[in-house]
Amino acid sequence: MFAKGGVSLLCAVLALPAASEPLSAKDSEPATLGWMQGFPPARDKVVRAADGSFFQFPALRYSVTNMRQFMPTVEVSRGLEAPVPLEYRLDPLIDHLQFLPWGSAQPISFEDALWLNYTDGLIILHRGQVVYERYLGALSEDKKHAAMSVTKSFTGTLAAMLVAEGTLDENKTVAQYVPELNDSAFGDATVRQLMDMTTGLQYSEDYADPNAEVWAYSAAGNPLPKAADYAGPVGYFAYLQQVKKQGEHGQAFGYKTVNSDALGWVISRVTGQSVAELLAEKVWRRIGMEQAAYYQVDELGTPFAGGGLSAGLRDMARFGELVRNGGKWQGEQILPAAAIDDIRKGGSKDAFAKAGFDKLKGWSYRNMWWLTHNANGAFAARGVHGQTIYIDPAADMVLVRFSSHPVAANGANDPTSLPAYQAVADHLMTLYPKRNSHEVSSTLRSE
Amino acid sequence: MFAKGGVSLLCAVLALPAASEPLSAKDSEPATLGWMQGFPPARDKVVRAADGSFFQFPALRYSVTNMRQFMPTVEVSRGLEAPVPLEYRLDPLIDHLQFLPWGSAQPISFEDALWLNYTDGLIILHRGQVVYERYLGALSEDKKHAAMSVTKSFTGTLAAMLVAEGTLDENKTVAQYVPELNDSAFGDATVRQLMDMTTGLQYSEDYADPNAEVWAYSAAGNPLPKAADYAGPVGYFAYLQQVKKQGEHGQAFGYKTVNSDALGWVISRVTGQSVAELLAEKVWRRIGMEQAAYYQVDELGTPFAGGGLSAGLRDMARFGELVRNGGKWQGEQILPAAAIDDIRKGGSKDAFAKAGFDKLKGWSYRNMWWLTHNANGAFAARGVHGQTIYIDPAADMVLVRFSSHPVAANGANDPTSLPAYQAVADHLMTLYPKRNSHEVSSTLRSE
Repeated sequence: MFAKGGVSLLCAVLALPAASEPLSAKDSEPATLGWMQGFPPARDKVVRAADGSFFQFPALRYSVTNMRQFMPTVEVSRGLEAPVPLEYRLDPLIDHLQFLPWGSAQPISFEDALWLNYTDGLIILHRGQVVYERYLGALSEDKKHAAMSVTKSFTGTLAAMLVAEGTLDENKTVAQYVPELNDSAFGDATVRQLMDMTTGLQYSEDYADPNAEVWAYSAAGNPLPKAADYAGPVGYFAYLQQVKKQGEHGQAFGYKTVNSDALGWVISRVTGQSVAELLAEKVWRRIGMEQAAYYQVDELGTPFAGGGLSAGLRDMARFGELVRNGGKWQGEQILPAAAIDDIRKGGSKDAFAKAGFDKLKGWSYRNMWWLTHNANGAFAARGVHGQTIYIDPAADMVLVRFSSHPVAANGANDPTSLPAYQAVADHLMTLYPKRNSHEVSSTLRSE
Repeated sequence: MFAKGGVSLLCAVLALPAASEPLSAKDSEPATLGWMQGFPPARDKVVRAADGSFFQFPALRYSVTNMRQFMPTVEVSRGLEAPVPLEYRLDPLIDHLQFLPWGSAQPISFEDALWLNYTDGLIILHRGQVVYERYLGALSEDKKHAAMSVTKSFTGTLAAMLVAEGTLDENKTVAQYVPELNDSAFGDATVRQLMDMTTGLQYSEDYADPNAEVWAYSAAGNPLPKAADYAGPVGYFAYLQQVKKQGEHGQAFGYKTVNSDALGWVISRVTGQSVAELLAEKVWRRIGMEQAAYYQVDELGTPFAGGGLSAGLRDMARFGELVRNGGKWQGEQILPAAAIDDIRKGGSKDAFAKAGFDKLKGWSYRNMWWLTHNANGAFAARGVHGQTIYIDPAADMVLVRFSSHPVAANGANDPTSLPAYQAVADHLMTLYPKRNSHEVSSTLRSE
């Protein structure tokens, strides 16, 4: 692929699994398989970005915790202050909770689901306290893991923040902020349409199609040097300028990564900061993060706002808790409450229904978050291979999972994941019912 | 350069300056020149690793604080504990101290020298307390800066630690630890000869010579994908295996970066850890570091033990203070006292004199540290473009400077740097004379 115009990082992120039955989670542990171990690693244990091997399962299980080893990155600084430790109230029952996977009459346990989904790390906060935390695969408490498209929800949250602050007008067109996008499909879309991915774009993320636009996008964003005969755009922003319109804006949800990067461009133009710099200033430096996070970048240093974030598991939970608490952290309003309210109100279910996510009936997409519209009002950030921040307001729960599932599409893990999260929510709501809002809020450490 | 077999990172690090008079420090500030600023940066403000432009002055002044943006890296973890703040006792007189540059009858001030030497950051500890701290160029307290060959002193210190612990026998040959080096020049060298760079190697770091071995070394270590016609070794370790002997080991000091990487290989083979992992475990996690550091790596993930470290200014000072205090940090013995003693005793002045550092008369090189053997017993880690950790035991002083001097060789900045450090030492010794050893040690915060 390199000879054809650059390694495909984005494609690699979304690569289809091998046709044969993949190794189990236990059999594919990176330490067992020995990827990149030894001095030097054995020839058949080396994985590389250049040939895409670093994102082929099972090597993927190593790479997800070592993205910076394969490509240039920029830091999301946590500042220099002491981290604020999370409080612990571990609940040993959670691993034993039973639930029915979608379409199955055979219950399995929460712990069974950890292994089925190639979980690398899973943490659950209840009312801000850690009730569950496990590390598997190659992850540990002091490492970072690729968040994949969970990154989009950070981009969308930053945009919602700017809208709530009045810095960004969601009714203006994208071209009003980024004139370079005037002649592209994005030009006459509103910022709001971009934020909710209801743009009409000629852009396919069908990885089975060698002519799908995602391959060209990936080549443009690839930070490794282009081949001599590469004639395409260089960098995410250059690619976005030549995306063509298809259909009308505002009609249907279309899950297309380019929207997130176009939104990242709008954010950067408005604030004068990259999404990495803005996320550091507005969030990472302000809520006691334990570790700096980082973004992969293109060769112009542009962070990949559509999927380039890597961060620690607990720090993702801190962010989830910030969102669950309406933007407050330990009594201080960090993100505008209106921005969080706007995420929680959700997007158009009609627009969502047109996108063909048959298993996610009744959901919507707003500010680059996925709204379940279930009885608990749960909403989530979601990334391929099983990444999620799952926030259940009714259960006062934030759950973060990092995974390296062999199948990219979350359809492969949702049947044993979403009902597992619901089982934990049910368990917590039974143990800790909400009696009245005053009592609830007085029990909240962070509110 | 890419077409010829890979970008030359090492070469770039050591590139010669342009022949014309370079911009002054003030005129070359990265913020003024606008490198990699804007969304996207203007075409003529983009710097890249692939074409070596990121290491050409004045773009270099941006790149030194952003190495990870240009190449793959691995973290040196600080762990998750709270940083231990340094105590401050700032001395406003230091900037006004006057000294005579070497070969000049015209005194200049310490602050003059900051600008003359394109200083990006300079911190001075006296008895563990910060008496001076300034950030210029593109550096700030929460960023990291390339340490260049100061990295070698970290590698040498780790090796000295392993020798002091008995894990590594300095009298054994390199091949006894790394059989893969048996047929190379390193094979029959002792570990001690490697640590002191008294190996006899056919290896030139003469950048003016296009056939110098350093170019092939650089191509081998370059993490970016090799060109299709590249037929050389891949990775630092593979390169080391084909270094040929020239002369005898143990006769003369020869400052050759390959020694540091060969030592890194020995260290990794003995400990089962990369130098990045070992440095994290033994140092970075143990002395209250504020920021994770990082190493650039080759395409097999091998940290560049000869020059790949980037770290925060204060964290470099913490390490310097650890060494000054005989390996103790806040009462705890972190590194073996014997390892530090072995650094301080120095190497062979005769061997050093054969290396042709005419301006560094009477110096020696031991455990990859430079010993001045001056009246104060000062010793230093040194890297191109003006990087240093300068430890003056008599003055109880640790000075760290990060720079981006247009001239790589330290001969260009030594005349206005080494006498400046001496002036500060004299000043501190006048203000705070040592009366007896008991009294001195009772004033030390960290001992």
